[in-house]
Amino acid sequence: MAGDFTLLAAVSLLSAFQQCHFARLVGKSRMKHKVMPPAVTGAPEFERTFRAQQNCVEFYPAFLTVLWITGCFFNQEIAAILGLLYVFARYKYFHGYVQSVKGRLTGFYLNLIVLACLGILGAVGIVNSFLDEYLHFRIMKKLSKLI
Amino acid sequence: MAGDFTLLAAVSLLSAFQQCHFARLVGKSRMKHKVMPPAVTGAPEFERTFRAQQNCVEFYPAFLTVLWITGCFFNQEIAAILGLLYVFARYKYFHGYVQSVKGRLTGFYLNLIVLACLGILGAVGIVNSFLDEYLHFRIMKKLSKLI
Amino acid sequence: MAGDFTLLAAVSLLSAFQQCHFARLVGKSRMKHKVMPPAVTGAPEFERTFRAQQNCVEFYPAFLTVLWITGCFFNQEIAAILGLLYVFARYKYFHGYVQSVKGRLTGFYLNLIVLACLGILGAVGIVNSFLDEYLHFRIMKKLSKLI
Repeated sequence: MAGDFTLLAAVSLLSAFQQCHFARLVGKSRMKHKVMPPAVTGAPEFERTFRAQQNCVEFYPAFLTVLWITGCFFNQEIAAILGLLYVFARYKYFHGYVQSVKGRLTGFYLNLIVLACLGILGAVGIVNSFLDEYLHFRIMKKLSKLI
Repeated sequence: MAGDFTLLAAVSLLSAFQQCHFARLVGKSRMKHKVMPPAVTGAPEFERTFRAQQNCVEFYPAFLTVLWITGCFFNQEIAAILGLLYVFARYKYFHGYVQSVKGRLTGFYLNLIVLACLGILGAVGIVNSFLDEYLHFRIMKKLSKLI
Repeated sequence: MAGDFTLLAAVSLLSAFQQCHFARLVGKSRMKHKVMPPAVTGAPEFERTFRAQQNCVEFYPAFLTVLWITGCFFNQEIAAILGLLYVFARYKYFHGYVQSVKGRLTGFYLNLIVLACLGILGAVGIVNSFLDEYLHFRIMKKLSKLI
């Protein structure tokens, strides 16, 4: 069964590595600016780095949820591509935020767009699955036959 | 296979939307009280809003875990109903907390009750699955035959 | 199908209980040191307790991701054992951190080692699954035949 979700699992693993990498960069920033744990305030650059990582942490479970729902209920390949785009947007966001407060915006808006796409496609997939299950109305199969 | 978990997926998607919505409300509160990132301190109302969202973030992965375990190992419909109740309790909690520190309590206790129910039912489901797998002792089937 | 993942689900449920337990200990520390919500600063012991829990929260979704990927794509038993080790390491980390800033280090390094193992084994499992799916090259089966 696992083989059916290899692409989703690969993107999830990549994003988990990224989360750990961001946590490591916060640790490095602690050393650089001599902000000893448990403090989370200090040099502005450290505070931006910490906040950037926190924002990534806040959205990560929601991202995984919409990624897997879109992958399972809509289309795995499309979900995986959007997932890769999300990882890239988080990279832009994090490193932009470390540079400056304004620097986070490009990555941030790209993140929101990707999350919105995954959320909408996931909702479409679930509605289709409900129609199929309870009304035996296979809209997606009919659409794909038309195309 | 995805079709077997449509209810759980629908509740998960709803909760992911809610998490994103809470993050947006924190952003709006930043604007309203002029708390510029990366700061997370300022007007009391902003601090309550931020803390409310942080608490939702902290419990979210644990919620998803017990929701899916209860849904897969005990009963999907019961898990989905408890999941909806959790989303409602988080709504009460968040908006109550924004109003006042005491306002969070109703939603908070409802959250805890729902989490405890999901955790206990999930544990029952797993114990049953272990008994079934290793001792070939199908307690749930026997119980349902009795009823 | 659920029965195939009983071990992974059991470890996940245990870790979810642990997350809730840590949140409860932060609440108790609030009472003890009279740090009223939404404040998150105050007595050093409270700040260490809070930071310890926050760190557990930050890594939790990434842990679940690598646990399930290793369990589904590599080997469920090995993943479950590493998962138990992670829960134990988090226990050491949390209670060590509550005692002193240095006290967190043993648990922290053990956490990192377990996460790295899960991440590497998960990646091996996914690469093997890709080879199997797209090149029909079943490296794991050949290896197990040799042994």
